Amino acid sequence: MEEQNENIKFSISDALINKVEQLVDSQNDEAILELLNEYHHADIAEILEDLSTNQSTYIIKLLDSDKTSEILMEMDEDDREKILATLSTKEIAEEIEELDTDDAADMIAELPDYRQEAVIAQIEDQEHKAEIQELLTYDEDTAGGLMAKELVRVNENWTVTECVKQMRAQAEEVTRVHSIYVVDDKEKLIGRLSLKDLLMASPRAHISTVYIPKVDYVDVNEDVEDVAKIMQKYDLEAIPVVDENKVLLGRITIDDIVDVIKEEAEKDYQLAAGITQDVEADDSILQLTRARLPWLFLGLIGGVGAFIIMYFFEKELPEEAVILFLFTPLIAAMAGNVGVQSSAIIVQGLANDDVKGSINNRLIKEMLLAALNGIILSIFLFFFVFAWKQEFNLALAISVSLVVVIIIAGLIGTFIPLFLDKRGIDPAIATGPFITTSNDIFGIVIYLLISKSILGF
Amino acid sequence: MEEQNENIKFSISDALINKVEQLVDSQNDEAILELLNEYHHADIAEILEDLSTNQSTYIIKLLDSDKTSEILMEMDEDDREKILATLSTKEIAEEIEELDTDDAADMIAELPDYRQEAVIAQIEDQEHKAEIQELLTYDEDTAGGLMAKELVRVNENWTVTECVKQMRAQAEEVTRVHSIYVVDDKEKLIGRLSLKDLLMASPRAHISTVYIPKVDYVDVNEDVEDVAKIMQKYDLEAIPVVDENKVLLGRITIDDIVDVIKEEAEKDYQLAAGITQDVEADDSILQLTRARLPWLFLGLIGGVGAFIIMYFFEKELPEEAVILFLFTPLIAAMAGNVGVQSSAIIVQGLANDDVKGSINNRLIKEMLLAALNGIILSIFLFFFVFAWKQEFNLALAISVSLVVVIIIAGLIGTFIPLFLDKRGIDPAIATGPFITTSNDIFGIVIYLLISKSILGF
Repeated sequence: MEEQNENIKFSISDALINKVEQLVDSQNDEAILELLNEYHHADIAEILEDLSTNQSTYIIKLLDSDKTSEILMEMDEDDREKILATLSTKEIAEEIEELDTDDAADMIAELPDYRQEAVIAQIEDQEHKAEIQELLTYDEDTAGGLMAKELVRVNENWTVTECVKQMRAQAEEVTRVHSIYVVDDKEKLIGRLSLKDLLMASPRAHISTVYIPKVDYVDVNEDVEDVAKIMQKYDLEAIPVVDENKVLLGRITIDDIVDVIKEEAEKDYQLAAGITQDVEADDSILQLTRARLPWLFLGLIGGVGAFIIMYFFEKELPEEAVILFLFTPLIAAMAGNVGVQSSAIIVQGLANDDVKGSINNRLIKEMLLAALNGIILSIFLFFFVFAWKQEFNLALAISVSLVVVIIIAGLIGTFIPLFLDKRGIDPAIATGPFITTSNDIFGIVIYLLISKSILGF
Repeated sequence: MEEQNENIKFSISDALINKVEQLVDSQNDEAILELLNEYHHADIAEILEDLSTNQSTYIIKLLDSDKTSEILMEMDEDDREKILATLSTKEIAEEIEELDTDDAADMIAELPDYRQEAVIAQIEDQEHKAEIQELLTYDEDTAGGLMAKELVRVNENWTVTECVKQMRAQAEEVTRVHSIYVVDDKEKLIGRLSLKDLLMASPRAHISTVYIPKVDYVDVNEDVEDVAKIMQKYDLEAIPVVDENKVLLGRITIDDIVDVIKEEAEKDYQLAAGITQDVEADDSILQLTRARLPWLFLGLIGGVGAFIIMYFFEKELPEEAVILFLFTPLIAAMAGNVGVQSSAIIVQGLANDDVKGSINNRLIKEMLLAALNGIILSIFLFFFVFAWKQEFNLALAISVSLVVVIIIAGLIGTFIPLFLDKRGIDPAIATGPFITTSNDIFGIVIYLLISKSILGF
């Protein structure tokens, strides 16, 4: 039997893709089934993502729906949508029947509005259908939108033996039993029990005498990011979801939370890089343009603003002051870098609930930090400029400006995300092009004002 | 009993911190114990992080080591280190005794070298000690460094009844039973069994007839990031770790993976923002300077480089060309923004194993994308400059430069992370200040060269 064990490192090869393509094109169904039978559904999903929509749809129609439903859920949303668009509502309903309620509701929610009801109408299992319809009523960013209806619940009045019997029935449809939730006659959540506890209890004991009355839960309207924080903080692998009367509605498992954490981190990362929407390297040029162009446009407006400011200064400054303009890219770059650094640390701290204390204290700390960094960098710049031009005042003007610009950039970078967060706006928006562009302009104005006064133009 | 159920949203209030501080300062041990008894160890860890080291150490010494060991593991590494520094090796060994082997090994690894052996020598449980010593031999970035020795293993020759009996003994020390691992007489991993399977099997059946021979595992030397990818892809909640002979060594659970994913995402985010090392908003000014100054220095060198280039151009250009220099911040900002956007998408794609196909195809796609964005932005810039100055050639020179600069910035942003990745270097280093600084310089050179030739200076 040993040979069946696998060190699961799977990587797609061009050879494998070619082979699958050939088999599909020659409609060699038997060979396709035999080949794909070896692979995990997550691996098949990866293979299908590398095929054309026609080819992948062919395979989806060929395999059993218990397998294809899992494959579809593992695929990229875009690729899945393309395949679903080619399936009939009946075929989609068959996939839905095989999925857990949370995945089923997600798949339906992705369909165009006009297809959603048609698909739901075709679901044969009435309980499954009602549960999916319930899940579709919750906002996708809340605990209700993330939870599954599949869970193991036992009544406090059962005995351990009755409980095991009931569970055998329920557990059929629950892939992983994390906790057994104990409810009273009104379906209110009153405690929990682990399989381990059940395994170790006397068969005749009543559940009411063996269950653990301390159970953590979240409200169905709780924000998913808060659910993620709670599950991480308390190291929970599953958490029950209740309504305002504590009636047990569903449960959220840690693998859903892993997805929430990843998506949140990717969104923040993309915003810091000046990319909106959830795009990937493999998206189309148009999708990528939509995500990138607005931020570039913001940068362009900032650059034009900087030009206008410099233009008016240039008119007032004497000819020999042209050298000042040669340092504007340096000043702007430093203002941008410092701003991004300080805003990123605040954004990350806010995401982790790590930012305690008052805004004033934050700003004082950032000012000291920026001053320290600024002075070190300015000393270097002073000696460079002085060595280059032997003009003490010029070197002084540029160096002093750099310190001031760095301090102000640090303060802006700290203040804006804190301010947005207080206002209930996602502070991650502040990082990246937004901060760099505004700091470019502030930096250049401050630099030219300080230089002008020191050099006495 | 219902009142014990809790909707677990805990937030620290200043009032709570003040109360705890007062109780500690007045050494009112009884009241401290009574107050903290209400809280989860993760909440107590948060409270302690807000106290002085003396105060938090006082509480750690007051509470039982089964609780304090958990509290210490939940705390920030810096705060934990400060407290451990005030504890004797004997006291630390007592904490270690209470921890699972993976946490225990992590705590010991954080101690200064000269204390590590002294602490290990004080561990009384010889089996625990040997397991911790084994874990300390693995690299922290490998499966071995992440795994715990606590797991439930059963021999294929046992009956279900024997198995349940043996498991009761083993399960005592295993907090969560995910899977039961089945081994042969040589301790080789040959399969698995879920608690659910065991619950449903006949008590007299032999394990060899009920176990599932298909079991996923990872090698003890596997990189943790790869383990994280595998567990996410296959939705695993735990995975066994084996040596080269498939001997079962330990297991990794999904909560450890959540930490790996978060740390990885935070590291990439910080690198994109120009911050090295793992710093937080609450770290000291010196720590933050160490993490930020090197990148700022890189930016300064870039700015000086840009100055030198512009200086030599300026000498060659006629007086009226001064207006060109007023656009350098715009050009540099756009080059930087495009570079960060394209490198961020590649870095994220590489992290998700999403970047397929050849480097050439990537570069061609980015070139088309950058050209599209560049042309749209340049049309806007052309009309602005022309409206401002009514000089067709000037407007043309600046706009053409912008398109070319954006394309080249996009190519650099795409190429560098792909190149670093091929070389086995973390591509995330490429994002942020590194890309913006090099693109600033490239951008300005290209801009001045193109303008010079179009304007015929």
